Amino acid sequence: AIVDAIRAALSGDTGDRPLAGRHVIVTSGPTHEPIDPVRYIANRSSGAQGTAIAQALVALGARVTFVTGPATVPPPAGVDLRAIETAEQMRQAVEGALPADAAVLAAAVADWRIESPAQGKIKKDRNGAPPALSFAENRDILAELSRPGPDRPALVVGFAAETDDVIANATAKRARKGCDWIVANDVSPGTGIMGGAENAVTLIRADGAETWERMSKPEVAARLARRMAEALGHGTAEEAAQ
Amino acid sequence: AIVDAIRAALSGDTGDRPLAGRHVIVTSGPTHEPIDPVRYIANRSSGAQGTAIAQALVALGARVTFVTGPATVPPPAGVDLRAIETAEQMRQAVEGALPADAAVLAAAVADWRIESPAQGKIKKDRNGAPPALSFAENRDILAELSRPGPDRPALVVGFAAETDDVIANATAKRARKGCDWIVANDVSPGTGIMGGAENAVTLIRADGAETWERMSKPEVAARLARRMAEALGHGTAEEAAQ
Repeated sequence: AIVDAIRAALSGDTGDRPLAGRHVIVTSGPTHEPIDPVRYIANRSSGAQGTAIAQALVALGARVTFVTGPATVPPPAGVDLRAIETAEQMRQAVEGALPADAAVLAAAVADWRIESPAQGKIKKDRNGAPPALSFAENRDILAELSRPGPDRPALVVGFAAETDDVIANATAKRARKGCDWIVANDVSPGTGIMGGAENAVTLIRADGAETWERMSKPEVAARLARRMAEALGHGTAEEAAQ
Repeated sequence: AIVDAIRAALSGDTGDRPLAGRHVIVTSGPTHEPIDPVRYIANRSSGAQGTAIAQALVALGARVTFVTGPATVPPPAGVDLRAIETAEQMRQAVEGALPADAAVLAAAVADWRIESPAQGKIKKDRNGAPPALSFAENRDILAELSRPGPDRPALVVGFAAETDDVIANATAKRARKGCDWIVANDVSPGTGIMGGAENAVTLIRADGAETWERMSKPEVAARLARRMAEALGHGTAEEAAQ
């Protein structure tokens, strides 16, 4: 608390740092799953929403570990940056960043990887037969992090990128994964959300769903960070433990 | 020729524009092949080499149609830009840009696409079974462009990104595709070439292979553009036809 007070004084901060002393893990961006040395499976996540969330949490005083896939937006300032490529690398980076008071898993993590990526570039054969790709399911970072135990963050926030039945699917996902909140959004191509500047989200908690109007991704991030600060309450984890 | 002379005079160019009046198609960057609305198959091409080649050709006076996939480097100045995403869109853009005096197909085009991309995001099922992806082979832009006919550019240059037996594979590729030259390079991860600043290439022509020392991608581009100007000879296509 003294360190926080000194830090706040040095930064000229007037005291609105409700997350000072808190450690939050944020994941962001896509993951890339290699097929061979030159090809990979990707997704359209730009990392814009996860980056904005990290920035908003830093602005409220949190110490943020930012685990990011190959995003197209530049990473936020003031975070502990862990750049990864695959879903499995992301899982290990998240695990390695524990313990944490909260986690926001905003990355668009590949559900599957190629079971055995080729060591050399896969060539077309003369018959035009396509390669047979065998998939394996990636471990579920959100479900594993949400499992009760000593290392479970007090507040685990997942994301649900849906194209159909957004609220129903996201509500079911919250129950299935065991996380506290789900930020659900509609990533249908027509919405322009994935890769775009705005987001229209529904925050799903145990007590129901709350749909926010469409706003910029930094505005979504600021509102989410504020809600997280309220949920975590005042005082640092260290203080709470004393 | 009068227009070229005026253009040269206006640009302050001292006359070293051996490709003035020539139209060259350059393809560059990766292609993305959609799996569903959020996932796609990509490759590690940055577009740096194709962009540098387009710039070098413009510097020698060529009119360049630049057909580019989602590259990570910014597109070159002074070209006619056609931004595409899939291999099939690239093929159509190349075909639509004909006739041309020369073509340099530097893009890393996907050999395969997903036969029927899903309309909605593919979900994990409860059994953890991975999706069954069925592939179809993309049409071969280099082979089609190299086929004899009235629209065939006088000089067709292909690229071969290889990880093994680079020269042997690239020489076989030149014969198989029917193009005039192949620029072969080794994209093994250890070389740092794909996505990097340098390139180490072998230029394969009908009369043999010529290996260039490792140099920057702009230097490779300048040398290739100079060789192309020599091969196309002096005088514009319009003059040659008169």
